[in-house]
Amino acid sequence: MKLMVINGPNLNLLGNRETDIYGDASYETLCESLEAYAHTKGIDLEIFQSNSEGRIIDFIQSAKPGYDGIIINPAAFTHYSIAILDAIAAIGLPAVEIHLSNIHGREEFRRKSVIAPACAGQIAGLGLFGYFAAVDYFLYKAMKAEQSF
Amino acid sequence: MKLMVINGPNLNLLGNRETDIYGDASYETLCESLEAYAHTKGIDLEIFQSNSEGRIIDFIQSAKPGYDGIIINPAAFTHYSIAILDAIAAIGLPAVEIHLSNIHGREEFRRKSVIAPACAGQIAGLGLFGYFAAVDYFLYKAMKAEQSF
Amino acid sequence: MKLMVINGPNLNLLGNRETDIYGDASYETLCESLEAYAHTKGIDLEIFQSNSEGRIIDFIQSAKPGYDGIIINPAAFTHYSIAILDAIAAIGLPAVEIHLSNIHGREEFRRKSVIAPACAGQIAGLGLFGYFAAVDYFLYKAMKAEQSF
Amino acid sequence: MKLMVINGPNLNLLGNRETDIYGDASYETLCESLEAYAHTKGIDLEIFQSNSEGRIIDFIQSAKPGYDGIIINPAAFTHYSIAILDAIAAIGLPAVEIHLSNIHGREEFRRKSVIAPACAGQIAGLGLFGYFAAVDYFLYKAMKAEQSF
Amino acid sequence: MKLMVINGPNLNLLGNRETDIYGDASYETLCESLEAYAHTKGIDLEIFQSNSEGRIIDFIQSAKPGYDGIIINPAAFTHYSIAILDAIAAIGLPAVEIHLSNIHGREEFRRKSVIAPACAGQIAGLGLFGYFAAVDYFLYKAMKAEQSF
Amino acid sequence: MKLMVINGPNLNLLGNRETDIYGDASYETLCESLEAYAHTKGIDLEIFQSNSEGRIIDFIQSAKPGYDGIIINPAAFTHYSIAILDAIAAIGLPAVEIHLSNIHGREEFRRKSVIAPACAGQIAGLGLFGYFAAVDYFLYKAMKAEQSF
Amino acid sequence: MKLMVINGPNLNLLGNRETDIYGDASYETLCESLEAYAHTKGIDLEIFQSNSEGRIIDFIQSAKPGYDGIIINPAAFTHYSIAILDAIAAIGLPAVEIHLSNIHGREEFRRKSVIAPACAGQIAGLGLFGYFAAVDYFLYKAMKAEQSF
Amino acid sequence: MKLMVINGPNLNLLGNRETDIYGDASYETLCESLEAYAHTKGIDLEIFQSNSEGRIIDFIQSAKPGYDGIIINPAAFTHYSIAILDAIAAIGLPAVEIHLSNIHGREEFRRKSVIAPACAGQIAGLGLFGYFAAVDYFLYKAMKAEQSF
Amino acid sequence: MKLMVINGPNLNLLGNRETDIYGDASYETLCESLEAYAHTKGIDLEIFQSNSEGRIIDFIQSAKPGYDGIIINPAAFTHYSIAILDAIAAIGLPAVEIHLSNIHGREEFRRKSVIAPACAGQIAGLGLFGYFAAVDYFLYKAMKAEQSF
Amino acid sequence: MKLMVINGPNLNLLGNRETDIYGDASYETLCESLEAYAHTKGIDLEIFQSNSEGRIIDFIQSAKPGYDGIIINPAAFTHYSIAILDAIAAIGLPAVEIHLSNIHGREEFRRKSVIAPACAGQIAGLGLFGYFAAVDYFLYKAMKAEQSF
Amino acid sequence: MKLMVINGPNLNLLGNRETDIYGDASYETLCESLEAYAHTKGIDLEIFQSNSEGRIIDFIQSAKPGYDGIIINPAAFTHYSIAILDAIAAIGLPAVEIHLSNIHGREEFRRKSVIAPACAGQIAGLGLFGYFAAVDYFLYKAMKAEQSF
Amino acid sequence: MKLMVINGPNLNLLGNRETDIYGDASYETLCESLEAYAHTKGIDLEIFQSNSEGRIIDFIQSAKPGYDGIIINPAAFTHYSIAILDAIAAIGLPAVEIHLSNIHGREEFRRKSVIAPACAGQIAGLGLFGYFAAVDYFLYKAMKAEQSF
Repeated sequence: MKLMVINGPNLNLLGNRETDIYGDASYETLCESLEAYAHTKGIDLEIFQSNSEGRIIDFIQSAKPGYDGIIINPAAFTHYSIAILDAIAAIGLPAVEIHLSNIHGREEFRRKSVIAPACAGQIAGLGLFGYFAAVDYFLYKAMKAEQSF
Repeated sequence: MKLMVINGPNLNLLGNRETDIYGDASYETLCESLEAYAHTKGIDLEIFQSNSEGRIIDFIQSAKPGYDGIIINPAAFTHYSIAILDAIAAIGLPAVEIHLSNIHGREEFRRKSVIAPACAGQIAGLGLFGYFAAVDYFLYKAMKAEQSF
Repeated sequence: MKLMVINGPNLNLLGNRETDIYGDASYETLCESLEAYAHTKGIDLEIFQSNSEGRIIDFIQSAKPGYDGIIINPAAFTHYSIAILDAIAAIGLPAVEIHLSNIHGREEFRRKSVIAPACAGQIAGLGLFGYFAAVDYFLYKAMKAEQSF
Repeated sequence: MKLMVINGPNLNLLGNRETDIYGDASYETLCESLEAYAHTKGIDLEIFQSNSEGRIIDFIQSAKPGYDGIIINPAAFTHYSIAILDAIAAIGLPAVEIHLSNIHGREEFRRKSVIAPACAGQIAGLGLFGYFAAVDYFLYKAMKAEQSF
Repeated sequence: MKLMVINGPNLNLLGNRETDIYGDASYETLCESLEAYAHTKGIDLEIFQSNSEGRIIDFIQSAKPGYDGIIINPAAFTHYSIAILDAIAAIGLPAVEIHLSNIHGREEFRRKSVIAPACAGQIAGLGLFGYFAAVDYFLYKAMKAEQSF
Repeated sequence: MKLMVINGPNLNLLGNRETDIYGDASYETLCESLEAYAHTKGIDLEIFQSNSEGRIIDFIQSAKPGYDGIIINPAAFTHYSIAILDAIAAIGLPAVEIHLSNIHGREEFRRKSVIAPACAGQIAGLGLFGYFAAVDYFLYKAMKAEQSF
Repeated sequence: MKLMVINGPNLNLLGNRETDIYGDASYETLCESLEAYAHTKGIDLEIFQSNSEGRIIDFIQSAKPGYDGIIINPAAFTHYSIAILDAIAAIGLPAVEIHLSNIHGREEFRRKSVIAPACAGQIAGLGLFGYFAAVDYFLYKAMKAEQSF
Repeated sequence: MKLMVINGPNLNLLGNRETDIYGDASYETLCESLEAYAHTKGIDLEIFQSNSEGRIIDFIQSAKPGYDGIIINPAAFTHYSIAILDAIAAIGLPAVEIHLSNIHGREEFRRKSVIAPACAGQIAGLGLFGYFAAVDYFLYKAMKAEQSF
Repeated sequence: MKLMVINGPNLNLLGNRETDIYGDASYETLCESLEAYAHTKGIDLEIFQSNSEGRIIDFIQSAKPGYDGIIINPAAFTHYSIAILDAIAAIGLPAVEIHLSNIHGREEFRRKSVIAPACAGQIAGLGLFGYFAAVDYFLYKAMKAEQSF
Repeated sequence: MKLMVINGPNLNLLGNRETDIYGDASYETLCESLEAYAHTKGIDLEIFQSNSEGRIIDFIQSAKPGYDGIIINPAAFTHYSIAILDAIAAIGLPAVEIHLSNIHGREEFRRKSVIAPACAGQIAGLGLFGYFAAVDYFLYKAMKAEQSF
Repeated sequence: MKLMVINGPNLNLLGNRETDIYGDASYETLCESLEAYAHTKGIDLEIFQSNSEGRIIDFIQSAKPGYDGIIINPAAFTHYSIAILDAIAAIGLPAVEIHLSNIHGREEFRRKSVIAPACAGQIAGLGLFGYFAAVDYFLYKAMKAEQSF
Repeated sequence: MKLMVINGPNLNLLGNRETDIYGDASYETLCESLEAYAHTKGIDLEIFQSNSEGRIIDFIQSAKPGYDGIIINPAAFTHYSIAILDAIAAIGLPAVEIHLSNIHGREEFRRKSVIAPACAGQIAGLGLFGYFAAVDYFLYKAMKAEQSF
């Protein structure tokens, strides 16, 4: 199984910024932990971070053949990038939306996800663990699909 | 570790109703699968379902000593029960909010959680797996806490 | 034919309260008139009143086998009980929503029914007659169904 | 007893259009069924349909002497014709508002009736039966009025 | 000087309806008083009433040559007839908007005039006198215009 | 007959400012024209202008004995001074609200009058003539009242 | 191919009114140009203009047999005539909505079309050319349909 | 004099929860202090707490004979329980609404009381003292009533 | 103990105006009763009334040394005077907001207090008694403070 | 004549995605058909597609000399890219906005174009034909301009 | 060059109040620093502070002859004083709006300036420096104006 | 001292576009004037312009070591780029937001800055001078900081 992991703007600063909200692990640590975790589960990850909406859309569009799902933390783009919404909907792969903090308990403008309608689900507020759970979700779904044969 | 699992109104009808949205597993199956899953992880669960906001609040209030966290699927109460919000905030235990369907991609009124501000995080749209992930989250947090000693 | 009749909070005070809006017949009179009316039409009614949202949902859930329809006057719950909306939707029986007064001509907050999307129709402002009409509606539908064979 | 029955714009197309919402009986059938029904109850009906708000207001204004009530399905005018609201309020006859479909469960803009404040009540979603119930309501009210002498 | 006087829907019922709001003079009396008043000032009036938005627009369009101004009481059309707004704007004659009652102190939906942007001014709440004042306004303007030569 | 004329903030600058909106007559000219006009009608005016909401309220409160009505151009206070609304309501004298320009055709925030509910009526957009019409209105009302004896 | 062309209120004044917005060609010129254009394409047009919503609906209802599509410039009705929306939806013919000016760049209330949901598409701001394009669109669609056999 | 004291959801946790907002006295202390206070004033109190909206309505309905007034702290129900609003309105006893914290200075959703229209008044932000003041208010009103004989 | 009592615009008219809402005691009576009440409790009051927002702010600013608290009935200023909000916040004294009528059950615009966030609490709808309760509150707080030594 | 054709995010996926909304022609086919069409009309097209708002703005800015107009399908950027609005306004070339689907009949958030105020017009819902019509529009305008010499 | 400096309500308390937001320099220090600064630039300042909207308007009106510009910190009046907006617009002098704190990053109601439309620009959040920059701005503009001769 | 100067989309077109709003100096002139100005103050500037949100974020992220502050004119991104808001907040450098025109007096959508909460302050409407003032502000702050040792 091969999954795309997409991290939106400013996530590369993780650990340096607002550590009371996002924790003090650096972005590199997040990536390494996540890759290690996926490795133990036998899953290939392609992790991508960009501050550019356009490059994220380009990356999503490249997903089609060869990937089984998308894990996306759209960061600030969550709240206004209808273009990313359209990209995920167009590409047709199952996607899970991740937020490190619980956006539903923060400022009003952070509670709305314009991207959600194109995603299977959303995990918010569970920190790095959210990514792990997303990986497990794809495994779980695959197992379920197999069982139904 | 001991966790409280709370399911809100109409979840007991699972499997009989709107199966395109909620899947066709019955509520009993959900409970059994969840208990089996928790058992393998060495966790005790107290699962509770009620159609009554008052009884859910009573149950939350009984949580204080002996429980390590709350997993709650507030169902319809998600959208208006400020009383459950207050109960979770008052009891002071970490809580994870679960929704079987991705409420953020449904009708406008289902996208808002008044309960979220009192929860650590929210998992939506991942079906039964959401409960499993919530259990794992509490284990992950405990492990992390231990590591920091 | 067997119908469930559900009356929401404070309807048991009928006749004692705000008689300019709700008329001066007591709740007992309403029930007796309604049962008498149904009797002449050969219909069994199970009338239930509760001030508790939870108990109303429990009652709706008990409806499945043996009932042919639901007549519900949700009273104040009309305006916020998404849980009752879900219960009616889940149980899958045809339902008619009744209001003694014409809620569409009253205060702004009384004009919105969150329950309507799960109901076949709504009768408002026709007093006790609204219940009679609802009973007749179920007869009419049954007759129509028969005719199409 | 003599009642005015007013049908708003496009109702004359009934049976040809959107039959999943409005049923497949034609407008002529609706009129005939309704007249037959009223006849058995000893009631005279004057049925009027127009696509023009002005002609509907003219017709309402002609109601004063000789009519005992108004049954009106304002169709699209429900949502914006304050002029019809004023006409009904001015003429001072009791009126019942009818909608074939349950407007409270449809698009947001169809849920609001600007006409309701001038009507005794509203019946929505019960199809042709709604007209029958409105006729019965006027009979019921007349009987009640008689009883109180 | 020749003025057009346009009265919107239901104003022909004046004196019969809601007399606490609109006074008890009949529409005929209003017209006669107004004509008498204009006569003493040497002004020709063409008074027109219709319940039909279309006929009112037709009438406004007929105004161009020969009329010096428009006095319009749009009644219920005040609040939604963008078509009358456009007609007045298109015809290019000065117009004064009249309301018998003080719409700015009534229900929320009666406080907004969509027609006002095409009018020189508005007189509300002064009853029949409002029409007199509008007539005087056109005289005053003509006198002013003359003085500036 | 004795009337109070109240002019709100910045009206004393009339003729110097934004003459495309308010005309080029000075405030002094407005006062003199108005007094001359009232004089010919046998009416005493007490004209008052202030930029201070508090002083305007003080002045309104002094009106009770000896005055027959209030003509008020609240200028900017129209849109937010609930205190002036309360003062007019409390003093119980009939009041007419004047605006030189047609506020209903200007910026959104200028279309709402919080003061209107305490006034008999409103004249907007007719310039200085609006004051004349208000004077005439009080005469008209007095004449009407006399006639009814 | 035969198309219905419907022009809403005040369009008959074209060329006389607000020529900076709508151009200085008269309505007659518009009709002649359009007919000439259609003629060269071998298409029959039935052009209809009315200031009356009711007559426009009557005309739409007459379209069914014999017409292949509707070109409609609803003018002011665009923004509130749910009745025209319903008429177009009911009649089931493909319709193209035309606006001479670019309503999406004008006042807020002119940016919303309540009629759009029943139309295949909308052309705004291209003046008379918009009508030509609509004619061409129906030809294009017919050609496409043919090609797919 | 006999008063009903009703405390809404989660108030039983007082002293354990969010002590910066609600103070550190326990619910038991609140009840005892309040009863002691009432005792010195010669007033009987029936204190009731529930997390269930339905049980609170049942309790209000039981108030009619024998009670002189209601002191209610609806807690979270303040903001959405139209059913409690209706219960207080129906029972017809004077009621005073209490909030320990000043809800008007907290989150937006806590500033609105749907229950207020059925209450004589509201005391917010004065902590336990608010209850004392409510008791005193009923005494004051009784004394006033006596004086007027 | 020394308290400042501030009464906003039009409160000096008490007893003359809208007595169904505000009672028929005059403002002088209110002041005398309040002073007598405070006297028996050994408290000095400085009572101030003004129709001017500016003078009220000047007065609040003079409070600093020598006063222990502020009792303020901001009347109409409640709803828009952010300047009074700022003055109370700046001066740093505890303040209690009083309203004679229950503003939370009146017109929408009277339900919002912009001043509340700077006040300890609010008492509404209890008439003159509200002032007494505010006086008692300051005594109660002082007593509590003493007890904690 | 030389025109710029700009296609926004995800349009390159055309034919692969949501074919019920956008048709099943691929993006390449769209480009080829469009170029062929323009070629027959003697027009040069420069077609550009990007998922990046910044690159689209760069491209628009490069338009100035040598281009006669812009045809832009902003896709998702339609709804939030004020930066593209500013770019089109700044460059000063006439622009036509294209949407393949009728955005005015889709989800609420797709009905608003922030870009429209800088465009001459908008064509929505006519599929590929919309591009052809835009090309024709520029020809039509050029012809008209010539005629006026 | 001579400039008017106007400080709104509660600014005279500077240094005593909420020093985390407004700094700990007193109002006197602010005035002295500002005057010293202006002095070194050869500019005369007339500094004025008032808690009264009316007195601020009086002062602005006195500005006309002799002043070259206005520097105004309207404090709380920023958010609702349309009367100050009108005064600045009427007087016709260039004005710069100053806020010590960054109002655009504070509570929602503090982010809107009703006064801005009458000002050349706004400086917010730069503390005392904002005043210095406003002084410099007028110098810069004068220099620019000179250069263009 | 070293400052970053960031200019958002379309600012590179300065002088060519909408010169009534933005002045007729070209972007090059703006940069040169600004650099000259900073040079005389002994400050190093790194000026950056981009039409791409992503490249602006990349640039902000590169600021950390070596820069003392950020001067940013986000242009159209002001109104929706939560990603830039997050970038500035994350990088932790003091920032001043600049707008050439007074956005608070323009179209509604231009009055809101989503970026403001992460900035120390905002200067709007003062043209090029705004940049100079921002430079001076950083000098002033540095001087102040020094003085406090």
